[in-house]
Amino acid sequence: MSATTDSQELGSTLVTGIGELVTCDGSTPDGLGLRHDAAVVVEAGLIAWVGPAAQAPAADRVVDVDGRAVLPGFVDSHAHLVFAGDRGDEFAARMAGTPYDGGGIGVSVAATRAASDDQLRALVAARVAEMRAQGTTTVEIKSGYGLTVADEARALRIAREHTPETTFLGAHVVPPEHAGDRAAYLELVTGPMLAAAAPHAKWVDVFCEPHSQHAFTEDEARSVLVAGRQAGLGLRVHGNQLGHGPGVRLAVELGAASVDHCTFLSAADIEALVGASDTTVATLLPGVEFSTRSPYPDAAGLLRAGVSIALATDCNPGTCYSSSMPFVIALAVREMGLTPGEAVLAATVGSAKSLRRNDIGRIEVGARADLTMLDAPSHVHLSYRAGVPIARALDL
Amino acid sequence: MSATTDSQELGSTLVTGIGELVTCDGSTPDGLGLRHDAAVVVEAGLIAWVGPAAQAPAADRVVDVDGRAVLPGFVDSHAHLVFAGDRGDEFAARMAGTPYDGGGIGVSVAATRAASDDQLRALVAARVAEMRAQGTTTVEIKSGYGLTVADEARALRIAREHTPETTFLGAHVVPPEHAGDRAAYLELVTGPMLAAAAPHAKWVDVFCEPHSQHAFTEDEARSVLVAGRQAGLGLRVHGNQLGHGPGVRLAVELGAASVDHCTFLSAADIEALVGASDTTVATLLPGVEFSTRSPYPDAAGLLRAGVSIALATDCNPGTCYSSSMPFVIALAVREMGLTPGEAVLAATVGSAKSLRRNDIGRIEVGARADLTMLDAPSHVHLSYRAGVPIARALDL
Ligand SMILES: [Zn+2]
Ligand SMILES: [Zn+2]
Repeated sequence: MSATTDSQELGSTLVTGIGELVTCDGSTPDGLGLRHDAAVVVEAGLIAWVGPAAQAPAADRVVDVDGRAVLPGFVDSHAHLVFAGDRGDEFAARMAGTPYDGGGIGVSVAATRAASDDQLRALVAARVAEMRAQGTTTVEIKSGYGLTVADEARALRIAREHTPETTFLGAHVVPPEHAGDRAAYLELVTGPMLAAAAPHAKWVDVFCEPHSQHAFTEDEARSVLVAGRQAGLGLRVHGNQLGHGPGVRLAVELGAASVDHCTFLSAADIEALVGASDTTVATLLPGVEFSTRSPYPDAAGLLRAGVSIALATDCNPGTCYSSSMPFVIALAVREMGLTPGEAVLAATVGSAKSLRRNDIGRIEVGARADLTMLDAPSHVHLSYRAGVPIARALDL
Repeated sequence: MSATTDSQELGSTLVTGIGELVTCDGSTPDGLGLRHDAAVVVEAGLIAWVGPAAQAPAADRVVDVDGRAVLPGFVDSHAHLVFAGDRGDEFAARMAGTPYDGGGIGVSVAATRAASDDQLRALVAARVAEMRAQGTTTVEIKSGYGLTVADEARALRIAREHTPETTFLGAHVVPPEHAGDRAAYLELVTGPMLAAAAPHAKWVDVFCEPHSQHAFTEDEARSVLVAGRQAGLGLRVHGNQLGHGPGVRLAVELGAASVDHCTFLSAADIEALVGASDTTVATLLPGVEFSTRSPYPDAAGLLRAGVSIALATDCNPGTCYSSSMPFVIALAVREMGLTPGEAVLAATVGSAKSLRRNDIGRIEVGARADLTMLDAPSHVHLSYRAGVPIARALDL
């Protein structure tokens, strides 16, 4: 998702005229590290210098952003981009009252299996480009619409062309052909499918959800995660989406980097997340609550309690076909009680932490030169100007 | 907001490959008049032919939209685009709990009066372009941040450069310099200010809101509307935004074309709107409820009762700085119970009716050639892909 090679050929670039630089470097009490009238020097794809525009060093090339705000590129730490077809009809039916239970995933599985490699590759490339045009510079991409050995490996190979943050989600749902024998499917997922997927994946994930017959129980999910860890993968969990459940507990027990959704949390879940805040991030996906007409979790309450939080889109054809991190930020402010600054932190340094990365999500010397510019003077406009496409990744 | 002159020079244009043509022409029971694999011929800025792509006549120029959906350009029938400065700080404070009472309008009045003609003209042009890039082809523009004779006339002159749908809103709030003498301000608004504004305006509007000390009572609002009517202007009303009130009743009494907000409606208000459904449209502005964390009105219930409804942005620096009709459509589906198709109708033919226009908001022979294309196969994607900038006006 980066233009590192091009940047190296260009030598150094000075980005100046930055009205508000949102470093997210933790240098101010609110964590935002705001600087005004700032400049950044980029060299070889990394940030080489940050300081007042008036003191900026010379560079081979100058980009003047004319008073606009510049932020770390958004880190979208939860997305399902490798699929064919869409499920607009299911969305319209849900808005008319049909509840979501995960069953529709099978529709996308059928369409994805039927797509050629070239078709799938073009679809993923278009979605990554759409995200970048909205300010996202790192995206995590999950498999999970193949659900055969060959189709899951294919999905991850294609995803790896765009990001190192690839996630094996063979345990998305039990596919129709295994509906009569869940144990056999779990053996496949933790055996040959994992073996084929692991070379292309950094993470393993599981849809742990007792409220869906299509998803996985606590014990099933544990077996998937333990097998993934033995194969060298980091752990992520889809948990607590459709109701109270074991997802958060399991993620904390196994030291997962992230537990995602967290729509329904008990006091014990919150306590567990507070205790694990160095290890396990609660990744909130308000686009899903928007698109499934579900209640929103209390992100502000989680922050106050001491939970580490992240924001991501969950871009997928079923429960949230939005690829927009600005939209997610606006929802987090309107519906989940975050301040505009807290929402930006969750969408940058917070989601970077959920990927165990410290080279993205912040603007400081040595970090990757992933910068996003707003057509606005302040990060507040991401929520103040909800729905307006004001963010885009800078091509440096 | 149109490219009529250019189109005339180009001769006829065939737009073909339309996967889903949303005519909004009322030819199907749901009103959407969907056609598949359709084509449209445009000539001299008007629609000259609509039919199956396979039967399309020859034209001087062909635009193939490759299976995408095409709709009537959105009609944004309520927007305040003539202002300088922004109120991001007020937005952040409101999200942290400070209630909205209309008092912040004075901040925009001060900034707008201080701006030069050229500054204001550039700001308005940028906002109109931003709207067009999101699929809006007609926008109503109100004055109301000048509140002197010269500043209101200036705002309307600048607005008129972009749209015939200009609205005199001298009765937006009582400006600070008249706070001690409301009667004197009303004499100004209904006298010299109206006289200076009327040559540049089609409509007169008033913020009728007993819940704000800054806005106008029922009797004050009636005097403004009656004076405007005598000066040849059509009537619009801001009503029932902050609580129950007289706005709807007054709008129906005077035969206004639109009463806007309708956040708080009594059974009597709904009954009045049903009785006046040929004359008075209830214009819903869900971006305002989003950006002020207010309850949403029940649009689906209004439709079922027989009320004529429209959707618009209310784009303004205080209560909703969103210029995005797709965002408004997505909110209307998620929060107000409309189907994706009903929301599209309200944003096109519904808002055209609120402007007493039948040459926009629908795709049929003789209508203006204002077409919006989606980067998607169906109008459902406007709400299914919330937050993603998939709509843009076609430059023909
Ligand atoms: Zn997911
Ligand atoms: Zn308004």
